[in-house]
Amino acid sequence: MVDLVIKNGTIVTAADVYQADIGVEGERIASIGHDLAGQEVVDATGYYVFPGFVDAHVHLSLPVGDVVSSDDFTTGTIAAACGGTTTILDFITPQPGQSLQEATIARRGEADGRVAIDYGLHLTAVDATPETLEALPELAAQGYTSLKLYTTYDMRLDDEQFLRLLAAARECGLLPLVHTENHAAIEYLKAGLLAAGKTGPRYHPLSRPPVVEAEAANRVLTLAGLTGTPVCIAHLTCRETLAAIEAARARGQAVYAEVCPQHLLLSVDDYDRPGFEGAKFVLSPPLRDRSHQQPLWRALANGGLQAVSTDHCPWTFEQKQRGRDDFTQIPNGAPGVETRVPLIYSEGVGKGRLSLNRFVEVCATGPARLFGLYPQKGTIAVGSDADLVLWDPEKEHRLTQESLHMNVDYSLYEDITVRGYPVLVMQRGRVIVRDNEFVGSVGAGRFLRRGLFRL
Amino acid sequence: MVDLVIKNGTIVTAADVYQADIGVEGERIASIGHDLAGQEVVDATGYYVFPGFVDAHVHLSLPVGDVVSSDDFTTGTIAAACGGTTTILDFITPQPGQSLQEATIARRGEADGRVAIDYGLHLTAVDATPETLEALPELAAQGYTSLKLYTTYDMRLDDEQFLRLLAAARECGLLPLVHTENHAAIEYLKAGLLAAGKTGPRYHPLSRPPVVEAEAANRVLTLAGLTGTPVCIAHLTCRETLAAIEAARARGQAVYAEVCPQHLLLSVDDYDRPGFEGAKFVLSPPLRDRSHQQPLWRALANGGLQAVSTDHCPWTFEQKQRGRDDFTQIPNGAPGVETRVPLIYSEGVGKGRLSLNRFVEVCATGPARLFGLYPQKGTIAVGSDADLVLWDPEKEHRLTQESLHMNVDYSLYEDITVRGYPVLVMQRGRVIVRDNEFVGSVGAGRFLRRGLFRL
Amino acid sequence: MVDLVIKNGTIVTAADVYQADIGVEGERIASIGHDLAGQEVVDATGYYVFPGFVDAHVHLSLPVGDVVSSDDFTTGTIAAACGGTTTILDFITPQPGQSLQEATIARRGEADGRVAIDYGLHLTAVDATPETLEALPELAAQGYTSLKLYTTYDMRLDDEQFLRLLAAARECGLLPLVHTENHAAIEYLKAGLLAAGKTGPRYHPLSRPPVVEAEAANRVLTLAGLTGTPVCIAHLTCRETLAAIEAARARGQAVYAEVCPQHLLLSVDDYDRPGFEGAKFVLSPPLRDRSHQQPLWRALANGGLQAVSTDHCPWTFEQKQRGRDDFTQIPNGAPGVETRVPLIYSEGVGKGRLSLNRFVEVCATGPARLFGLYPQKGTIAVGSDADLVLWDPEKEHRLTQESLHMNVDYSLYEDITVRGYPVLVMQRGRVIVRDNEFVGSVGAGRFLRRGLFRL
Amino acid sequence: MVDLVIKNGTIVTAADVYQADIGVEGERIASIGHDLAGQEVVDATGYYVFPGFVDAHVHLSLPVGDVVSSDDFTTGTIAAACGGTTTILDFITPQPGQSLQEATIARRGEADGRVAIDYGLHLTAVDATPETLEALPELAAQGYTSLKLYTTYDMRLDDEQFLRLLAAARECGLLPLVHTENHAAIEYLKAGLLAAGKTGPRYHPLSRPPVVEAEAANRVLTLAGLTGTPVCIAHLTCRETLAAIEAARARGQAVYAEVCPQHLLLSVDDYDRPGFEGAKFVLSPPLRDRSHQQPLWRALANGGLQAVSTDHCPWTFEQKQRGRDDFTQIPNGAPGVETRVPLIYSEGVGKGRLSLNRFVEVCATGPARLFGLYPQKGTIAVGSDADLVLWDPEKEHRLTQESLHMNVDYSLYEDITVRGYPVLVMQRGRVIVRDNEFVGSVGAGRFLRRGLFRL
Repeated sequence: MVDLVIKNGTIVTAADVYQADIGVEGERIASIGHDLAGQEVVDATGYYVFPGFVDAHVHLSLPVGDVVSSDDFTTGTIAAACGGTTTILDFITPQPGQSLQEATIARRGEADGRVAIDYGLHLTAVDATPETLEALPELAAQGYTSLKLYTTYDMRLDDEQFLRLLAAARECGLLPLVHTENHAAIEYLKAGLLAAGKTGPRYHPLSRPPVVEAEAANRVLTLAGLTGTPVCIAHLTCRETLAAIEAARARGQAVYAEVCPQHLLLSVDDYDRPGFEGAKFVLSPPLRDRSHQQPLWRALANGGLQAVSTDHCPWTFEQKQRGRDDFTQIPNGAPGVETRVPLIYSEGVGKGRLSLNRFVEVCATGPARLFGLYPQKGTIAVGSDADLVLWDPEKEHRLTQESLHMNVDYSLYEDITVRGYPVLVMQRGRVIVRDNEFVGSVGAGRFLRRGLFRL
Repeated sequence: MVDLVIKNGTIVTAADVYQADIGVEGERIASIGHDLAGQEVVDATGYYVFPGFVDAHVHLSLPVGDVVSSDDFTTGTIAAACGGTTTILDFITPQPGQSLQEATIARRGEADGRVAIDYGLHLTAVDATPETLEALPELAAQGYTSLKLYTTYDMRLDDEQFLRLLAAARECGLLPLVHTENHAAIEYLKAGLLAAGKTGPRYHPLSRPPVVEAEAANRVLTLAGLTGTPVCIAHLTCRETLAAIEAARARGQAVYAEVCPQHLLLSVDDYDRPGFEGAKFVLSPPLRDRSHQQPLWRALANGGLQAVSTDHCPWTFEQKQRGRDDFTQIPNGAPGVETRVPLIYSEGVGKGRLSLNRFVEVCATGPARLFGLYPQKGTIAVGSDADLVLWDPEKEHRLTQESLHMNVDYSLYEDITVRGYPVLVMQRGRVIVRDNEFVGSVGAGRFLRRGLFRL
Repeated sequence: MVDLVIKNGTIVTAADVYQADIGVEGERIASIGHDLAGQEVVDATGYYVFPGFVDAHVHLSLPVGDVVSSDDFTTGTIAAACGGTTTILDFITPQPGQSLQEATIARRGEADGRVAIDYGLHLTAVDATPETLEALPELAAQGYTSLKLYTTYDMRLDDEQFLRLLAAARECGLLPLVHTENHAAIEYLKAGLLAAGKTGPRYHPLSRPPVVEAEAANRVLTLAGLTGTPVCIAHLTCRETLAAIEAARARGQAVYAEVCPQHLLLSVDDYDRPGFEGAKFVLSPPLRDRSHQQPLWRALANGGLQAVSTDHCPWTFEQKQRGRDDFTQIPNGAPGVETRVPLIYSEGVGKGRLSLNRFVEVCATGPARLFGLYPQKGTIAVGSDADLVLWDPEKEHRLTQESLHMNVDYSLYEDITVRGYPVLVMQRGRVIVRDNEFVGSVGAGRFLRRGLFRL
Repeated sequence: MVDLVIKNGTIVTAADVYQADIGVEGERIASIGHDLAGQEVVDATGYYVFPGFVDAHVHLSLPVGDVVSSDDFTTGTIAAACGGTTTILDFITPQPGQSLQEATIARRGEADGRVAIDYGLHLTAVDATPETLEALPELAAQGYTSLKLYTTYDMRLDDEQFLRLLAAARECGLLPLVHTENHAAIEYLKAGLLAAGKTGPRYHPLSRPPVVEAEAANRVLTLAGLTGTPVCIAHLTCRETLAAIEAARARGQAVYAEVCPQHLLLSVDDYDRPGFEGAKFVLSPPLRDRSHQQPLWRALANGGLQAVSTDHCPWTFEQKQRGRDDFTQIPNGAPGVETRVPLIYSEGVGKGRLSLNRFVEVCATGPARLFGLYPQKGTIAVGSDADLVLWDPEKEHRLTQESLHMNVDYSLYEDITVRGYPVLVMQRGRVIVRDNEFVGSVGAGRFLRRGLFRL
């Protein structure tokens, strides 16, 4: 007799769909079978049982200039849990003068004890000094096994720095996750737009068109080919970047990529919303015209993209006002950690764009695998953590701000009603969400010491 | 306590790799967990436990003119089992004057009671008469849920017939499996070669170059796009056909494809072997130059190809002699049903071209899913048939004719030693192969009434 | 002192633009220089002097079933002349039971003595019998150096016939000009539309979508690659066919293609015109959506397409009524021989899509070169025929039916005002059009015994 | 009666091939016709008469560090003339601390009075300061209408500088000519090779692989797309760069490109020549493997490439010795200004890769057009400069160092015998080369004040 049995659900993994009971001992899945007996029993009849979902790209308490993104490690992880996500990956970003190790300690200090779900941290390299390069192997050994790199913003790195960091990443097995947009091009376009009096949110996408993203992706992938480093392209948005990725793969490179729900579902049209509403959609890379969506969905379905992440980075509408007279001053980012899984299920599985298996793969197994969390996270198998989501495929939920838990005063998806929603979320065998209410304990989330990426 | 426990193996599915015991009750997997107790126990320590593999393209006892392929349903299925394959799909091909239903009954008569493993049958349409079209729904309901179509040979169909059959297949949910080569082109090229005195086996590939295959694939896929029918391209061999498939997918079509080990591993160079040795490699579509292999492996790895099949159709070297003075008279086909899985494991997983998961997907889960056998076959999950292969990843095996069980007097892979081989094969809970020896019973294999293809 | 001098014009060839006088002796250009003296002088100050334009695809007096296209050799060639075209190529199409030689004699009989400008004739093969194949070399030697082939209509040929004819064409140097649309696909789609009660002109394009054209192009080009025959694709309309052509070129094949003004300028939207107006635009391959136009213009500009032809084949609106209740009964074809050059100048050169040189190349030099008329026709050089067009780049002309000379009761371009029009047209030194009025003599046009195509 | 008549030659332009006499008055072509009478007559019977060829990329007296390339303005232009080239374009490159205007005056001082043929000069921007940007319009007005930009070497510019210069070039109509190779990538690769003890010439191409060139091309073209500037890519070498160009064109950009004979004809194999011989072939971008040549020839034939230039920059074998122990110290560059036209004729026209017209276009008309020299240079038309080359298509010439006039002690093409060679070269009506001997006067060449590039 095991501690807990999830009975009669339809278990879905990246490969399988079948009906069985799941037995949990302590924090892990101990057995899968029929007629399992447990101290405690949860009835999953009529529900899918999915592995707890993994969001590999989240920014909580992110300071940008003098403002800080509105979800902290507590509010953000509670919201994630309510949406079915049981693991997030956030970022360590050294401040000026701070070493990568110092930044790591500081970031752990902000998160540990305040998280409602398990979490890990990507490193971010903001320079390529010998100190930074030397810090990487030790940090990798401590479970920080991925490395965020930027081609734009203040954290941007030039080609020479990229080459050093990519080579170092290959040496110690870190997987780079790269934000690719050409910085000089953005500055040129911004200056031109502002000079022409084009200051509203609708000009944001014109300041960062698809070619600007694809150029940087092509450059980074070329350099990664020279150093022999596998790379994951962050939040790609357009067919041009897909083409750059395909070209690198055809040269034999290992290239991975994540996409965000906003780029699959929203579009430049949203920047034209009345008043300053468009500012809510100011995020980077920006929303694109709808013609990019079908190729992205197809790549998601056929294996060209490995993960759906959110780049969750909400700002209140108040905070967005900073850019009322100048779109370049609008804090970039939007909420999403809670809505990712319901949106991809409803718009993906529900509309025939993704199979159930592929949905689990891109929302759980894929990101877990890329970032060294598998098989502890990302699947339902004997020995894996009992992170489980009971999912009612018929439950409808309108994604209004009021019905969500993210600490932000609007929703990007106010008008959308999804079909399919979590009814119960469990982490390591404990129920943490029941009927859209967080019932776990803040602080129960653990830091995940991640393994190295393996293909 | 279950009937049987496979203990301590490393279970591999299309998604997962983990260590656990498998409990079998009767013919099915009843539980997966640790420390399972069973009436009988098989120790799998140090072994992978794979789902029984599925070969979706096999020709046993195939009559071509006045000769018959050398493996019959007994020898062929024993050989399959020894190579780790527990399910095959063969073909029903009406003879002149025979209806599809009559051919079905006849073929069942040849197989039932003589097969060592479970099997199913594809229908073959050799015309598009109203009788044939009307027979399809009933046969689909009886578990014959796929439809072989040819663009060449005597069974070839013209564009109008294709349109009728594709439309009918869509109506009743049959998945067409299409052999694509342009018949007129082959005849033209053959005539030219023979007229020029080019009669040896080395001219076989020149009579059916890649464009001849790709043209027919493009045509069939265009027609399938018009009728809205998903299609599986049989045994593709070249990057030109891959391009035709990619183009159809970009148009939004559902297209699947299988590839054979011989096209991944052998090449036109084999036609230049001394004497008449090249005749052993005369199969169609023919072997290509090596430049096609990397794109095929990549498509297999990244999801562009769904299945590895064999097109197993052996002829003795004696039978091949018919074409000694004229390569067009050499019976087309080669042995392969036994060597498929070890070759793909050793050359794929062993050489880093495929992950373990992807290996299982293309050799088991993928073909099972395409042809309506999943989840009964193709995976290791509670409720699935207990078709299991215990695999020693260190076992070496030289693929000589003597060490294999196929009823043919040569091996295409005499010089190749694979690393990784089955040590025990089980069908529905019964051991049928132990240490490369068939220990099951002929006739124990069952006809599989297959479901409809679901994406 | 020469017979005639064209003074002070700006001479434009496929390569050059320069100001000079042209001296004509008899029927040919004798000199180019400054201050030439002549018996007669034509002042071309302010005008471009272009070579007489060549329309390589015209159907005059074309019988289809029981109707005949409305322009005969006289009205059609007068209209051509008024639009700046001094050479057309029409077709010889054997009727059932007629040999190619008989058809040739018959067609010559219809044209000789009735043409207002010089003309040549393409052969059409409607079968691949030994008689037809044997007739080709002799007819080529008589100046019939191109061969129309069809994949649809009653004249359609199957793959085997194509291979024979393509091989024969290569042998005697004939350039095949191929109409590519998949016949069976069209019949399938037509039947489906009619069965669904979709009988209006707007369903015409749905019965022959781009893939139907591209599939046949790909097939024909594949076969031509096997026989080693250069091929010209007739009136391509879509990016899919362009892709098929590019693929064949990448394989090393010599492939040429022509495009028609209607496919560059009109679109499927025209089928939605009120009432039965859409029937005027029923031609095949049909008009496409506008997204195909930019790729076609680009291919025209950059050398991917070699010629602009018209496929001129007008039917009166009365004749079009036959298909009032069934779009498949509408005679296919439209007027165009007179409007081609002004449209391509105005929409091409005038809108910056084509350089002046490229305009001359695709409307004159290119078709002349492809079909063995160069250097007699298609350029302005010493020794060439004095076929010259004086062109006023500022002259505006609204393309109404009344202002045009084609024997048909409507214009496809009623609303379009072009800028740039011929003011004087000369054939072999004689003025045949002055200010949009034909002033030559019917019967003065000559049959052109064409040379073989040379790359 | 004109001053000079070239009688009975076969005149070849980018569009035409025809037999006629050419009449010259003073320095220009005055008439083309038959039976022209002149004070002086040159018999061209049996010869082609080509326009004087234009080499748009030549480096004479180029200082690199403490060495200077071995041909000066006199030896280099005499050699050019002997090879049929009557116009070259060299470069103005500011030294540190020198303004663009000062550099222009200095460079004119080195060339004027010392050139044997007409010449022009490209500007080179080595920074994007306001002073440099402001100098451009004035220099453009003085006939310096093109702008060399580098992504590597000390003259390299970063993305921001590129954007400023591209925008400025668009404003004043300058055509940028861009050397594209990723600098940081080259430095990374060089360092790795040297660290591994790989110091010989054969490692040169490994330090600058195709992707390094294509990445920079893609970046520059992306930026040029944002500024709306037409761009010419200098000396491209590989299919990857061709793909980047095609992608930019598909986005609607105006992109041009030149290729050099060495990249069409030589290959990486030449770096493996015995001893230090490989050093003779050290030039950048480097020679590639032969698989790139067919795509380059095809692009040259079909209009994808507009010009064949040489990047002539010879160093004596003595000078090359500097890099005996370290390939990165070998002065980059090779001789070519004299051999370009015979090689492209013999290997291009002679081997059926280029038509006669296309040969003239890429060696004369194309570069003249791109760089504002047309119609003064680049064609044979009334009013153009009488720069003419009489060409014996049967004359054979082995390209040994002894038979050539370039001031360098080796030839890259010692083993190659071309068929087709100039027998007489004329500039502005004066004979300057007769039978491979320079008979003109040094100093008779003129500076060409070029017009703006027009499409």
